Amino acid sequence: MVNGIERPLDLLNNSKGKEVLVQLKGDKQFVGTLLAFDIHINLVLDNTKEIQDGEMKKSIGLTFLRGDTIIFVSPASTSKQ
Amino acid sequence: MVNGIERPLDLLNNSKGKEVLVQLKGDKQFVGTLLAFDIHINLVLDNTKEIQDGEMKKSIGLTFLRGDTIIFVSPASTSKQ
Amino acid sequence: MVNGIERPLDLLNNSKGKEVLVQLKGDKQFVGTLLAFDIHINLVLDNTKEIQDGEMKKSIGLTFLRGDTIIFVSPASTSKQ
Amino acid sequence: MVNGIERPLDLLNNSKGKEVLVQLKGDKQFVGTLLAFDIHINLVLDNTKEIQDGEMKKSIGLTFLRGDTIIFVSPASTSKQ
Amino acid sequence: MVNGIERPLDLLNNSKGKEVLVQLKGDKQFVGTLLAFDIHINLVLDNTKEIQDGEMKKSIGLTFLRGDTIIFVSPASTSKQ
Amino acid sequence: MVNGIERPLDLLNNSKGKEVLVQLKGDKQFVGTLLAFDIHINLVLDNTKEIQDGEMKKSIGLTFLRGDTIIFVSPASTSKQ
Amino acid sequence: MVNGIERPLDLLNNSKGKEVLVQLKGDKQFVGTLLAFDIHINLVLDNTKEIQDGEMKKSIGLTFLRGDTIIFVSPASTSKQ
Repeated sequence: MVNGIERPLDLLNNSKGKEVLVQLKGDKQFVGTLLAFDIHINLVLDNTKEIQDGEMKKSIGLTFLRGDTIIFVSPASTSKQ
Repeated sequence: MVNGIERPLDLLNNSKGKEVLVQLKGDKQFVGTLLAFDIHINLVLDNTKEIQDGEMKKSIGLTFLRGDTIIFVSPASTSKQ
Repeated sequence: MVNGIERPLDLLNNSKGKEVLVQLKGDKQFVGTLLAFDIHINLVLDNTKEIQDGEMKKSIGLTFLRGDTIIFVSPASTSKQ
Repeated sequence: MVNGIERPLDLLNNSKGKEVLVQLKGDKQFVGTLLAFDIHINLVLDNTKEIQDGEMKKSIGLTFLRGDTIIFVSPASTSKQ
Repeated sequence: MVNGIERPLDLLNNSKGKEVLVQLKGDKQFVGTLLAFDIHINLVLDNTKEIQDGEMKKSIGLTFLRGDTIIFVSPASTSKQ
Repeated sequence: MVNGIERPLDLLNNSKGKEVLVQLKGDKQFVGTLLAFDIHINLVLDNTKEIQDGEMKKSIGLTFLRGDTIIFVSPASTSKQ
Repeated sequence: MVNGIERPLDLLNNSKGKEVLVQLKGDKQFVGTLLAFDIHINLVLDNTKEIQDGEMKKSIGLTFLRGDTIIFVSPASTSKQ
């Protein structure tokens, strides 16, 4: 799975169309399908759900996330919470 | 609905003239019609309402929002609070 | 009123000479007449009043506000507090 | 008094040699004579006094203030505390 | 072990394929295998584990970490917690 | 004393070899002899002493201070604490 | 000792191979041998020890420290804690 990751953005590119877990500053977490990203790590997620303490808090659908507030992005398939 | 989103700003472009939910740092939320945006994610919203705990707190009409304080922008039609 | 807003700064340009409500980080609010702005969203307001909990706290006259601390700028005429 | 303010920095330029009130993040306030400024809003004040709750806390003389921590700069003559 | 470290990024380069300890702002710690980094200190870790008070809190697998939130990165082999 | 201050950095230049008071974010204060500075307001101080509540807390000798954390720099000769 | 310090980075250059005390935002302190630095004040330290209240808290060996979180760097030989 880690083949072909030469630069950090390669992982985001490999994750397009897949579910990712996004951790924001201030303890917010989102899960959604990664549709797009740019070099500022601005993301667009589809079917986004806000997670709190491991449970879904609310559904916010299609979402533009500013890169500035992101701590990490992890393909959901590799994450076991 | 997600067709044509190649880059994150495409979602903002698709949302022009539509109602969006904007989450700011420090837990402020706004709902309004997206009129304009730029690459700094500065936004202009019309008919802007500040939301707190899911209820309208006040109406602030036409508003310029600095991108710097924004966490996410979500088309209201896709968001079920 | 929203005619001619193609880019976010257009709203600031349209608001020159008019009263605006400026929300800063850390819950400070100012009301004053917008005299000038630049791309950093640095503003000059005249007849500036600091507002707290909807009441005037003090008058600070002519003021240079650094864009960096601004959350939103709203034409006072469209805002109903 | 507001004649000739086309851009925000014009107010700082007009205030050279005059007393200004400077509000910093974290509630520090300074009053002093503005000697110099640059585009980062770095300032040099002379006869600088730190103010707390409207009273002089200490005198810090000639001072270089980093623009980064400044919220607003206001000509003291227009400010009624 | 410290041979060949002329510039700070040399240590990250030497640590590729090895386990590193990453300390984030806000007291989060991660341990994982460093796969990639860039000049912004964005990292990709594999087999990432979040650590709290010296114990594994959760496994988050493959992860993109934004450089902006990182305090330090240390090869795990040289760290004795 | 204020002759020749056209730009803010002129005050730092005039203060080379002299004792300065440096106020950092988070209420740390240092006193030391200014040896060098750059446009980021990174400073080198010699015979640096950390001050707390007007008293010397510890001596940290020769020190590189990152400009990013600095609020103000004041020639000690003009400051009466 | 202070000979040859024209610019702030000269102190870091003079400190290569020597023990330095590094103060981070949020009250973390590290002591270690400075191996490398760059213009962002990213550092590599060897034999790094985290210090708390003047006592060694843990040993973290070879470490890459992001410049962004650094308040000051001081040659340990000149610092008397």
